[in-house]
Amino acid sequence: MLENLKQSVLEANLLLTKYQLVTFTWGNVSGIDREKGIIAIKPSGVAYDKMKMEDIVLIDLEGNVVEGHLKPSSDFMTHIVFYKNFPHIGGAVHTHSRFATSFAQAGRDILAMGTTQADYFYGDIPCTRYMRKEEIQGAYELETGNVIVETFKERGMEPDEVPGVLVHSHGPFAWGKDPFEAVHNAVVMEECAAMDFVSIMLMNHEPQRMQQSLLDKHFKRKHGPNAYYGQKG
Amino acid sequence: MLENLKQSVLEANLLLTKYQLVTFTWGNVSGIDREKGIIAIKPSGVAYDKMKMEDIVLIDLEGNVVEGHLKPSSDFMTHIVFYKNFPHIGGAVHTHSRFATSFAQAGRDILAMGTTQADYFYGDIPCTRYMRKEEIQGAYELETGNVIVETFKERGMEPDEVPGVLVHSHGPFAWGKDPFEAVHNAVVMEECAAMDFVSIMLMNHEPQRMQQSLLDKHFKRKHGPNAYYGQKG
Amino acid sequence: MLENLKQSVLEANLLLTKYQLVTFTWGNVSGIDREKGIIAIKPSGVAYDKMKMEDIVLIDLEGNVVEGHLKPSSDFMTHIVFYKNFPHIGGAVHTHSRFATSFAQAGRDILAMGTTQADYFYGDIPCTRYMRKEEIQGAYELETGNVIVETFKERGMEPDEVPGVLVHSHGPFAWGKDPFEAVHNAVVMEECAAMDFVSIMLMNHEPQRMQQSLLDKHFKRKHGPNAYYGQKG
Amino acid sequence: MLENLKQSVLEANLLLTKYQLVTFTWGNVSGIDREKGIIAIKPSGVAYDKMKMEDIVLIDLEGNVVEGHLKPSSDFMTHIVFYKNFPHIGGAVHTHSRFATSFAQAGRDILAMGTTQADYFYGDIPCTRYMRKEEIQGAYELETGNVIVETFKERGMEPDEVPGVLVHSHGPFAWGKDPFEAVHNAVVMEECAAMDFVSIMLMNHEPQRMQQSLLDKHFKRKHGPNAYYGQKG
Repeated sequence: MLENLKQSVLEANLLLTKYQLVTFTWGNVSGIDREKGIIAIKPSGVAYDKMKMEDIVLIDLEGNVVEGHLKPSSDFMTHIVFYKNFPHIGGAVHTHSRFATSFAQAGRDILAMGTTQADYFYGDIPCTRYMRKEEIQGAYELETGNVIVETFKERGMEPDEVPGVLVHSHGPFAWGKDPFEAVHNAVVMEECAAMDFVSIMLMNHEPQRMQQSLLDKHFKRKHGPNAYYGQKG
Repeated sequence: MLENLKQSVLEANLLLTKYQLVTFTWGNVSGIDREKGIIAIKPSGVAYDKMKMEDIVLIDLEGNVVEGHLKPSSDFMTHIVFYKNFPHIGGAVHTHSRFATSFAQAGRDILAMGTTQADYFYGDIPCTRYMRKEEIQGAYELETGNVIVETFKERGMEPDEVPGVLVHSHGPFAWGKDPFEAVHNAVVMEECAAMDFVSIMLMNHEPQRMQQSLLDKHFKRKHGPNAYYGQKG
Repeated sequence: MLENLKQSVLEANLLLTKYQLVTFTWGNVSGIDREKGIIAIKPSGVAYDKMKMEDIVLIDLEGNVVEGHLKPSSDFMTHIVFYKNFPHIGGAVHTHSRFATSFAQAGRDILAMGTTQADYFYGDIPCTRYMRKEEIQGAYELETGNVIVETFKERGMEPDEVPGVLVHSHGPFAWGKDPFEAVHNAVVMEECAAMDFVSIMLMNHEPQRMQQSLLDKHFKRKHGPNAYYGQKG
Repeated sequence: MLENLKQSVLEANLLLTKYQLVTFTWGNVSGIDREKGIIAIKPSGVAYDKMKMEDIVLIDLEGNVVEGHLKPSSDFMTHIVFYKNFPHIGGAVHTHSRFATSFAQAGRDILAMGTTQADYFYGDIPCTRYMRKEEIQGAYELETGNVIVETFKERGMEPDEVPGVLVHSHGPFAWGKDPFEAVHNAVVMEECAAMDFVSIMLMNHEPQRMQQSLLDKHFKRKHGPNAYYGQKG
């Protein structure tokens, strides 16, 4: 059942390797059929280059497996929390992509520092608070979803305008109208995190120029009437 | 019409992916036929791997579409400002390449710190001032061009000698005698930004050496009469 | 003899290039047949793309070559120390992967900063003390193993729970139940080191936001009723 | 003439792209036939993917072209200074590789911080002093060689033990017994520069651990009797 949805979820999972967001099996994409209330999600611990459509697991909104011979991603309850609380989304993704995860480890929001982020996220990409000991020792993956929902509520943020989040000491989650848009937003988050890292370092340190005479020499060695670099004509 | 120009603009756009300057569709290259006053430019939001020559849009210097079935890049007015104000250029490019964009986000010039930059840029690559609220809310893409032209005028810089710029909180723009040289200069900017980032960090922090005895051991394990690394002969 | 073991060790060595953990021949993987007490290990100084199964060297636990026409990796004594002291492991690896080695050069543990590390390492990945001059000038590779064993003992760490270590001013070593798991853990160490580097930098520096008006402009240029980016439909 | 030497020089130049040491044509390799006193060197400004054996230029030790239809690399005089002053070398290379060039721009030696460097370089890789205005405006490429030779003399360094150098505000040069070893050493320099950069940053900043409860949760989710990650068996 839901062959198109499973196909989309498979393809969207494979995009994680294309866009270099994952090492080994460290990422999972899901999609939902809102009418049927069924989620298609990556199986747990299966390598992307061996994953087939029949490996994609179908679960309902309580987490029961509806179809599939494998266990769903261990993060499935977090995905369920997204679908229950963010009514307009059709796909969700979790990765450990390098720069976004580094921001999560540092407990830092990915601040809106430029138009690259502004094109997709209407402001900062928030990082949740630390999860509490009871949450971690309890229904951990469910509570991971809950702390995300809490973060959006407490900050008055709209998940449709800010389609991604960092979980403190863990990593990035993103979503979108379908599994492909979710992955698209995860790629943007990673790139924005990388840029913000460099920008933050630059803003805190002073640069220094080269010598004028060396600048003159090299520019004029390649440009203008006395250039002697390269071949003639 | 202008098949050669469209072909060049198509190929120059595809170089953006070859040189890893773009994620998704985050970049656009244009070229101009000065005699006819017609600009060929990338269509808006079209993926590079699906772009064909007939997708390239021809516009005049007022921004009217002269030929093409798609909308031009949303940045087309910025390109027009370049062609109107920089009379010797034949191609222009905008990207969100990682390091150059990070400098733009930090509001920092890419200072001339070494001969790599001096080979192509006669000095610093400037970053514009913040754009004003009225400029952003007005004819934004036109004003983006204007703030670039203003920057060159106020600093007494020649666009033929410094063929690139950063727009504050946005990203890099570059140009050249044709679309290929424009992309070439964008690649140089990105590499210079990456190097300057590392140099600036190094200049602000102190290093420390390894132990002499360990240096001796490893060097002599591989070199000289008592070497024992690798196979004989 | 031990063709399966040699095949595994060959394949695990080739994974070092697949996962970009090595430059040139800067890495070596071994595996052990516990019953026979025989170790299969990479030959010294042989390029990965030319290595064949018959190049893999078999040695006993005293370091004597049991089979093979080439010299074993110069680090073979370090591997032997692992197999003698860590009774549950079946494979070991040494590389000079960039970020893990940088932590070793800085004499820094790879602290557990997030769940990426916690999924594989039960806490910090330790960096040994400086090796002493006598150790370096003595049985160096043996002493390299010894300082690792000492580190685990002194810190009360379990090699089965923390399957990797940094040797001060040198680089990473990792292990696992077989050669493949050893390489897997080496990949995790490198990625955790890369993330920790970025996180540490972020935690020590302050970021800064972009302008609200520019954020509004770019988000609304692509989203909502007045969007004008991309093609219609 | 000297077909073997030209072939080696061609192949060694192509390795620059394989090892990602160059952007565009920003690098050049030469080799020498000591008996004949003839140097084979890359032509100036020719793309690596179009370079053929007949494009390699032969010059004598005064810089006269002995064979070839193209101009030699504009840096040929620097190479000549190497061959005249370093009697044991057979190949030399210059690149603008990212990390080594960043150290040159910062005017910093690549300090020996670990065994990766110690395996190839017997100590620090020096950075020259600033070149003087008269040197830059005079016989610039010759003087570039001279300041390198001066650096080795003043510091009492042996070019056979330290087969590479940084020229201040410019970039790395390396050498070896033949063109291939020269390129090999250039790769090592670049990797050591990258590692030193990360190490230096780490040594100057403080890290911080994750929560113990989260560490427990994630490790035990994947390891031990209560693990629930991945598929059974």
